[in-house]
Amino acid sequence: MSFEAQSFLSSVAHRLRASEIRELLKLLDHPEMISFAGGLPNPAAFPRDAIQEVVGHVMTSHAAEALQYGPTEGHHRLRRAIAGGMGARYGAPQEVDNILITTGSQQALSLLAQIVLDPGDSVFTANPTYLGALLTFNAASSRVEGIACDEQGLIPEALERRIDELAAAGARAKLLYLVPTFDNPTGVTMPEDRRRRVYEIACERELLIAEDDPYGLLRYDGKNVPLLKSIDTEGRVAYLGTFSKILAPGFRVGWLAADPLLIRKAVLAKQAQDLCTTTFSQYCIFEIIHDNALFPHIERIKSIYRAKRDLMLRAAERMLPREVRFSRPEGGLFLWVELPPELDALALLPKAMDRGVAYVIGRPFFTDDSGRNTFRMNFSYASDDRIEEGVRRLAEVIAAALEDSRAIERPDRIGIF
Amino acid sequence: MSFEAQSFLSSVAHRLRASEIRELLKLLDHPEMISFAGGLPNPAAFPRDAIQEVVGHVMTSHAAEALQYGPTEGHHRLRRAIAGGMGARYGAPQEVDNILITTGSQQALSLLAQIVLDPGDSVFTANPTYLGALLTFNAASSRVEGIACDEQGLIPEALERRIDELAAAGARAKLLYLVPTFDNPTGVTMPEDRRRRVYEIACERELLIAEDDPYGLLRYDGKNVPLLKSIDTEGRVAYLGTFSKILAPGFRVGWLAADPLLIRKAVLAKQAQDLCTTTFSQYCIFEIIHDNALFPHIERIKSIYRAKRDLMLRAAERMLPREVRFSRPEGGLFLWVELPPELDALALLPKAMDRGVAYVIGRPFFTDDSGRNTFRMNFSYASDDRIEEGVRRLAEVIAAALEDSRAIERPDRIGIF
Repeated sequence: MSFEAQSFLSSVAHRLRASEIRELLKLLDHPEMISFAGGLPNPAAFPRDAIQEVVGHVMTSHAAEALQYGPTEGHHRLRRAIAGGMGARYGAPQEVDNILITTGSQQALSLLAQIVLDPGDSVFTANPTYLGALLTFNAASSRVEGIACDEQGLIPEALERRIDELAAAGARAKLLYLVPTFDNPTGVTMPEDRRRRVYEIACERELLIAEDDPYGLLRYDGKNVPLLKSIDTEGRVAYLGTFSKILAPGFRVGWLAADPLLIRKAVLAKQAQDLCTTTFSQYCIFEIIHDNALFPHIERIKSIYRAKRDLMLRAAERMLPREVRFSRPEGGLFLWVELPPELDALALLPKAMDRGVAYVIGRPFFTDDSGRNTFRMNFSYASDDRIEEGVRRLAEVIAAALEDSRAIERPDRIGIF
Repeated sequence: MSFEAQSFLSSVAHRLRASEIRELLKLLDHPEMISFAGGLPNPAAFPRDAIQEVVGHVMTSHAAEALQYGPTEGHHRLRRAIAGGMGARYGAPQEVDNILITTGSQQALSLLAQIVLDPGDSVFTANPTYLGALLTFNAASSRVEGIACDEQGLIPEALERRIDELAAAGARAKLLYLVPTFDNPTGVTMPEDRRRRVYEIACERELLIAEDDPYGLLRYDGKNVPLLKSIDTEGRVAYLGTFSKILAPGFRVGWLAADPLLIRKAVLAKQAQDLCTTTFSQYCIFEIIHDNALFPHIERIKSIYRAKRDLMLRAAERMLPREVRFSRPEGGLFLWVELPPELDALALLPKAMDRGVAYVIGRPFFTDDSGRNTFRMNFSYASDDRIEEGVRRLAEVIAAALEDSRAIERPDRIGIF
């Protein structure tokens, strides 16, 4: 009998499928393509000089520790710096025992899913929500309940209603996953009063909240809104942080800030998953924080990204057909676009790519296969001069598609077919 | 109602418990302690100069890519170098599509477990086996079947018998996990004829083999034995490799070499787990390989560790009581010790630590709670001058315990009590 890998796959493996987005992104390698598709920081926003300096310092002064295995919990001084920073910068003070360093915040989410969710457990998310979270919940065999959103994010009444429906059917709701600040994909920030209402519901209905906050420090204008974690008084919020967007994703360092029991269990799950996060990266990041170089650098990133957002918004306002709606985010990396309902963003994409511009279609971010007329545009990655040109090409593609759809509709209306 | 983290735990989280070993290792921080307990490479065996050089080069020439997100599959050039190296160095040539870069080989194992094992599926291991593998299988809710070993490793007939027993009970055997070369904890290397027999059994009984090989290149004497992966002709062996022991664990870079379908599924599982392995580490390691600096460095490590093994073996031969048996490994990092059955390695440990020397007890490596009279000694980490002193102290502690146990037995025999 010969080896058939297919016959060895677990039920989880059968459920894991390559995303359409991923396949499409492979076509983006062409250097002429103007890509608004990814979610990548701009390499110009990496603090190369500071990193070069700390990398040298770590090798000279801490090589024996930085090249060795480290504690699963993470480098103690980095955990302490994060615990302190969450108080000083986020109004959500933590103890070291509340902090676990993870391989990016994606791992923080996957560990949390593993220690909290049994197969079939319900997870609430905004609809649409971050695709990577949907992947994690899918891998955890969870049942995802996407909750309707408006321009302030997830609608509390819709959440309450759905929890109660599930409770009536005998199912227990366990986890609410949110990107409340500069959401991915929509860019929306949930206002303070709605956060307080959502937190109240979580307390009343016994939910754990996972607050994913990769972009929170990248605010370009408007007023800071308190974190769910800073509203939280009892450890009900598990906060997912990352250095990917404010420093460099290539280090793969994020963290989980949560109740100490959840941290202890997540440490054990992490031991089984990868033993510890890259020690070398952790030492480098600690040194950057220790040198007081992180927050000045974040100010620099903000001025780069603010200018890019403004460029994209101005171009969109000037050039996109009036029928197209788009968000005006106060921070983060993304604009969210809604085409008129008769247009399909997936059908449009090959035409856009033929014109040398790409975006990510919205549908995979939805939990119910809706959003066919939506897409996401990233403004952090493209160079300034290509942002306007990219939006111009997109505007032409959309305008032509609108023209076509009207040409089809019109004869229909006068009854020729 | 206030937040009770306990009530949110999944069944996996309930099953995850801190290991005794881990708790004991926390006591090792004292600088005077001679520790044979860990499995750490010696910091003197890190190629600091080479790393300092490539780290600088990566920052100067590849910063934009090395600090960015990378493909989930891993840095393409590193995958190609590993695929080539597996042919040239291991006699097991691979294509790039057979290689997934992982966050240490621990992640390779945890991904493989996720895509192959459903809860309750049976996994065969040597008894005893690597503790980290037991953690992973426990987190995957697997049923671990430890197979009896002799001085050549896992006994093929015992494996066959157990598979057939399970089949008779209607259960399907799926995965066989082995560290066939310089095993952890026993240091044993399975000879070629037994490897061929085990591979045959896997073919006949439809098992996937996970060959974990962290130490294979660290051979200090004797002849190379072919990898299971090099015997494999059909993709039945999934090979787990790592740079942790031959370069530096702090980079957290390992790999999975397997059937392309398994790789594709593992890539999807990895996306949900941590998106990608530290890009910066991957670039550094690629440059070291590209500079032809890896294999000369491995020769240097081997000469350091060979000397340490010899020191420990000579000391053990000279000083340990004759009733104590220990392995004479041809490579790797560990000596395996069997005390006379009346002694308990756990009960002895506090006495050893009082004398300033530590080891890891053997029992947690066993799947059936046996091995109470065994322990593992690591010879790579301690400095040369402390190895002999550590063995001396251990010998005294063991001799005293033997004395005590005889003192208790003797009166018993002559019937005083």
